[in-house]
Amino acid sequence: MKLGDGVEQAIHSMTMLATLPEDGVLSAAALAEFHGVSPSYLLKHLQALSSAGLVDTVPGPKGGYRLARKPEAITLLDIVLAVEGPQPAFRCREIRQRGPDPLPQRYFEKPCGIAAAMLAAERVYRAELKKTSIADLISDLKANDDGGIAARGCAFLEIHERKTAR
Amino acid sequence: MKLGDGVEQAIHSMTMLATLPEDGVLSAAALAEFHGVSPSYLLKHLQALSSAGLVDTVPGPKGGYRLARKPEAITLLDIVLAVEGPQPAFRCREIRQRGPDPLPQRYFEKPCGIAAAMLAAERVYRAELKKTSIADLISDLKANDDGGIAARGCAFLEIHERKTAR
Repeated sequence: MKLGDGVEQAIHSMTMLATLPEDGVLSAAALAEFHGVSPSYLLKHLQALSSAGLVDTVPGPKGGYRLARKPEAITLLDIVLAVEGPQPAFRCREIRQRGPDPLPQRYFEKPCGIAAAMLAAERVYRAELKKTSIADLISDLKANDDGGIAARGCAFLEIHERKTAR
Repeated sequence: MKLGDGVEQAIHSMTMLATLPEDGVLSAAALAEFHGVSPSYLLKHLQALSSAGLVDTVPGPKGGYRLARKPEAITLLDIVLAVEGPQPAFRCREIRQRGPDPLPQRYFEKPCGIAAAMLAAERVYRAELKKTSIADLISDLKANDDGGIAARGCAFLEIHERKTAR
């Protein structure tokens, strides 16, 4: 089981966008530069975040991305589902219905116990991801910052932030 | 995030092996036939289960596979880790350390809050998978069986089970 690298990139990008003032946006290129990642790869994930309604896209040469909701209202689960898709990790192929001399259909009305147990585990995983918001991540970062992290972010935003009407 | 089809195949195969008498084994070909899956693909997963110490391999033309432990002592987590590998789904690339004007190393002594939250969710996922054993799956199957499921399994074993010294 593996989550794509896009999940880490998307969460860090969302955290960066959460530090923008209300009228600010950042381009995909700036977000990619700040995180030292491939711009084209990050762009794909920003588009997924946009399709999921987590970021707003401001078009045009002075455009860019900003959060579509307050940081308190965006969870890790929202981001993981946006980037990785909504399907569960365990995808039951109903192999219990295959093979020689298959059983009558009435045995398969109830979901397979194996699929049920695997999906129960995914429910607790998702519930746990839902407990952490972008606002929580920022609080955590601030609690461990003596000023250096904030100063680096501010210096970057001073060069790259674009002002736009909201 | 996606688990390979091998997980479903491995769990069903382990459940089938749990129904064998103490001196019985099943070949990879028989397990593949029963579940209607590719023998070569299943063989790869049986080898992973063997490497993880979950099944014993009896070599030779009358050989095959049997559980290496009691069904009570084999959990869904054991099987998922055997087939998918022990690494967590979220693999932190430390992108917080990249980009322009990187921060001094002292800021990275504590794990990134994003990685910590993602890994906390994986811990609850794994803990949930650990709650279900092969014995639990068999109890659940029996509770929903009016005899048809057991009869099909027995008929198959009658043809395919191989007797071996234990």
